[in-house]
Amino acid sequence: MALDFALGEIAEHLGGELIGDPALRIERIGPLEGATPATISFLSHPRYQSQLAQTQAGCVIVAPAMRDAAAARGAAIVLDDPYLGFARLTQWWAARTRPPVPPGIHPSAVVDPGAVLGEGVSVGPLAVIEAGAVIGDGAAVGAHCVVGAGAGIGRSTRLAPRVVLGAGCRIGERGIVHSGVVIGADGFGFAPVQGRWEKIEQLGNVCIGDDVEIGANTCIDRGALADTVIGDGVKLDNLIQIGHNVRIGAHTAMAGCAGVAGSATIGAHCTVGGGAIVLGHLTLADHVHISAASVVMRSIRKPGQYSGVFPIDDNASWEKNAATLRQLHTLRERIRALEALRGNEKTP
Amino acid sequence: MALDFALGEIAEHLGGELIGDPALRIERIGPLEGATPATISFLSHPRYQSQLAQTQAGCVIVAPAMRDAAAARGAAIVLDDPYLGFARLTQWWAARTRPPVPPGIHPSAVVDPGAVLGEGVSVGPLAVIEAGAVIGDGAAVGAHCVVGAGAGIGRSTRLAPRVVLGAGCRIGERGIVHSGVVIGADGFGFAPVQGRWEKIEQLGNVCIGDDVEIGANTCIDRGALADTVIGDGVKLDNLIQIGHNVRIGAHTAMAGCAGVAGSATIGAHCTVGGGAIVLGHLTLADHVHISAASVVMRSIRKPGQYSGVFPIDDNASWEKNAATLRQLHTLRERIRALEALRGNEKTP
Amino acid sequence: MALDFALGEIAEHLGGELIGDPALRIERIGPLEGATPATISFLSHPRYQSQLAQTQAGCVIVAPAMRDAAAARGAAIVLDDPYLGFARLTQWWAARTRPPVPPGIHPSAVVDPGAVLGEGVSVGPLAVIEAGAVIGDGAAVGAHCVVGAGAGIGRSTRLAPRVVLGAGCRIGERGIVHSGVVIGADGFGFAPVQGRWEKIEQLGNVCIGDDVEIGANTCIDRGALADTVIGDGVKLDNLIQIGHNVRIGAHTAMAGCAGVAGSATIGAHCTVGGGAIVLGHLTLADHVHISAASVVMRSIRKPGQYSGVFPIDDNASWEKNAATLRQLHTLRERIRALEALRGNEKTP
Repeated sequence: MALDFALGEIAEHLGGELIGDPALRIERIGPLEGATPATISFLSHPRYQSQLAQTQAGCVIVAPAMRDAAAARGAAIVLDDPYLGFARLTQWWAARTRPPVPPGIHPSAVVDPGAVLGEGVSVGPLAVIEAGAVIGDGAAVGAHCVVGAGAGIGRSTRLAPRVVLGAGCRIGERGIVHSGVVIGADGFGFAPVQGRWEKIEQLGNVCIGDDVEIGANTCIDRGALADTVIGDGVKLDNLIQIGHNVRIGAHTAMAGCAGVAGSATIGAHCTVGGGAIVLGHLTLADHVHISAASVVMRSIRKPGQYSGVFPIDDNASWEKNAATLRQLHTLRERIRALEALRGNEKTP
Repeated sequence: MALDFALGEIAEHLGGELIGDPALRIERIGPLEGATPATISFLSHPRYQSQLAQTQAGCVIVAPAMRDAAAARGAAIVLDDPYLGFARLTQWWAARTRPPVPPGIHPSAVVDPGAVLGEGVSVGPLAVIEAGAVIGDGAAVGAHCVVGAGAGIGRSTRLAPRVVLGAGCRIGERGIVHSGVVIGADGFGFAPVQGRWEKIEQLGNVCIGDDVEIGANTCIDRGALADTVIGDGVKLDNLIQIGHNVRIGAHTAMAGCAGVAGSATIGAHCTVGGGAIVLGHLTLADHVHISAASVVMRSIRKPGQYSGVFPIDDNASWEKNAATLRQLHTLRERIRALEALRGNEKTP
Repeated sequence: MALDFALGEIAEHLGGELIGDPALRIERIGPLEGATPATISFLSHPRYQSQLAQTQAGCVIVAPAMRDAAAARGAAIVLDDPYLGFARLTQWWAARTRPPVPPGIHPSAVVDPGAVLGEGVSVGPLAVIEAGAVIGDGAAVGAHCVVGAGAGIGRSTRLAPRVVLGAGCRIGERGIVHSGVVIGADGFGFAPVQGRWEKIEQLGNVCIGDDVEIGANTCIDRGALADTVIGDGVKLDNLIQIGHNVRIGAHTAMAGCAGVAGSATIGAHCTVGGGAIVLGHLTLADHVHISAASVVMRSIRKPGQYSGVFPIDDNASWEKNAATLRQLHTLRERIRALEALRGNEKTP
């Protein structure tokens, strides 16, 4: 990793004003703390301003309000949105430092002659692509992926190694799907019959929009009759479960270990915290934010932040409070009784 | 998907009374809402009766009590259990619309000569089957599966692509295992030794009954000394963790993201909601139902529904209530004090 | 499994005092309950002493305090730490009863000529090893594993079938990684831009110490700028999510379905129970123990056991208590009002 770049080259890509020597060599992007003179860093929030004076970073990306403070200490790039600038810098950096994915089909891959591959498609070693699958230009199917019959992958979408995209399921353009993801397994549907479960075959598919990212080992089940639908720009973290017939609106983001039960509808621009659970058949409006580990047990029609977590405490305190909680309803009755008594005394 | 079927053909398979034209072409199974004249739908519960009059469905499957209401609007199939009829219809439909799994071993599969394959077995591309594995007649091993040494798969069981069935582990007949499932990884067992962990090798296997379905990316660990046991007819959703030595009784169903810690015993005909956790070494009786996201911290000996979830609220309300909850035990003491005072006043 | 061993051979390996016939044949390791005369068992805690008199076990491993009670009933091995002895016995047993992993590269594996493999390395069928990967002596890469470019595997580490070790990620010596594990998927990082999410490319790696075990389908994300770090001797169970930039101290153990959000730092010698969640950017001191299903919402600086779980109850009781909980803050105000009234009455 002896790669380095001229600061001027970086500044040109990001736009904004460059203060300092464009010839300065940058070897690394890093946080303010621990930065070296060859590091480019960023100040995402005025709150961290105190770190600005102390950092050894060769260059700091700052907002206009921080321009003078940054210039006083060394090189800077002034941008309206330094955090966005940082994001774009990571993309620029990755494009220059990561080995490109070579187009072409690895000889060990098993590609059905009935699959349709666009231009510049890359198929990794030992991937399996079944008949009728359609893969857009510039898409990449990683090693060990399985793309089912009739499945569709949009242009420039990348499947990391070992992704399953089930038969008939589709993902749009510019998506990123991480390893271990299973798209299109059967939804969990059974009719109870005299103490056992009769399978309801899941006849729908999964339909995923453009610019969607799906984290490692996450599962999105196919719909029972209609499709499970993931909107444009949705970001799902790792180990998330999306049940059948779920609909997730555009640009909603969900953190790791979250679960959405069947037929729930989540609006656009929502966030769901890690480990949170949304029960089945519920509706969440747009711009609803669920805190980590909270359980949504009723539909939420109003934007806002919602929470429901037992506060952690030292174990002894928790035990006492939890025991009392199991009698909470009784405590309320006792308060009522005290109040009634109080009222009676007062009345005369 | 230009497939369609005559209504008479469907009715014959389902049994019951057909009201209407057996020549009607059915292209789709769908819910009452949004149904077209080429859709067959069903009314699972009298509660939804109002939708019956409005639906455009070509045919509706109904219970005898709804016979006249259904007949008044168009074609109908009258069945004692419409939901079961719907389930069977999906199975009939899937059998006719999905490409059959071709028997035979894909040339890219790596099958040890010491494995024993029954008649009509299908082994997908790049699957690995180790020595001593025994695979029953008509079973299907999907692409990229790994079937370990001495493992057993019963007749007609289907492994979706990319399932790991560990050495010595067995699954019965007519099972369905979805992608990403890991059966037979080591249970989590360590002896603490002077601040570090000494591995306890897991010498048991996993033994799974007949008619079991296991959802995507679910894990079932092998037993420490004896086997982990999953009873007949058990249904496990996606991303479930079953620890070592767990025993799950017949026809129990567990929803996604649930976890059962080591050596727990769950009875037959239980249900465990999504994200629920059962701690180790506990026993749940038959017919115990655990609500989603609840945590079972003690054995449950009596059938019934059990719950334990912090109710979700807008964040500000939650913060106030959670803060108070951390003093709940003190509140109880204060109520006691008020009551005692009250009692003292009264005594004289 | 007709294998059996002489008791004397076992005793010699474990050390300690053997009471009884060294020629006794042992066929199985098992719990006291259900043991046969060919079973070797162990008494881990004096609490279970009553089982000692009743067991049919051929030999029991006991602590010195139990020596006489054990000798009175049959053969025994006396060890200072019987549970550790049991752990070592399982290791000895596994080494003798499991087929050894043959060294060498399976002809179906796809190994880049630029990968560096040590002596005695085993590469299973259909594994993929990319350029620049370095694999230490005696390490085993299971079937269907993908080892990314420049990744590193230490000596004697074993990857079960179907593990992904991402580009540039490293694991130390003597590790065990179970099936379905994904090491080095992208961390979940996005900058919000006008209602959509801009990807922050994840430029760090994952760095894992020696003697680490990682359970099935667990995910460890690569760091955003620096590495995600897992210390020596850490044990992670199945289906765990470790976010980007997380640091886990040596010899910490986490049970299944736990999740650690990005940039959290967990100390050494901690335990995290099943399904517990640690929120992002928090710090846990060494020797902190989090109970199962608890949610860590603030840093914990002091060793100890911490819990936060809503106690489970029959559903009707839960409903009443949960409803009251949503008014808990109000109840507290009512108690205050009663107390104030009380105080006013008393003052005069």
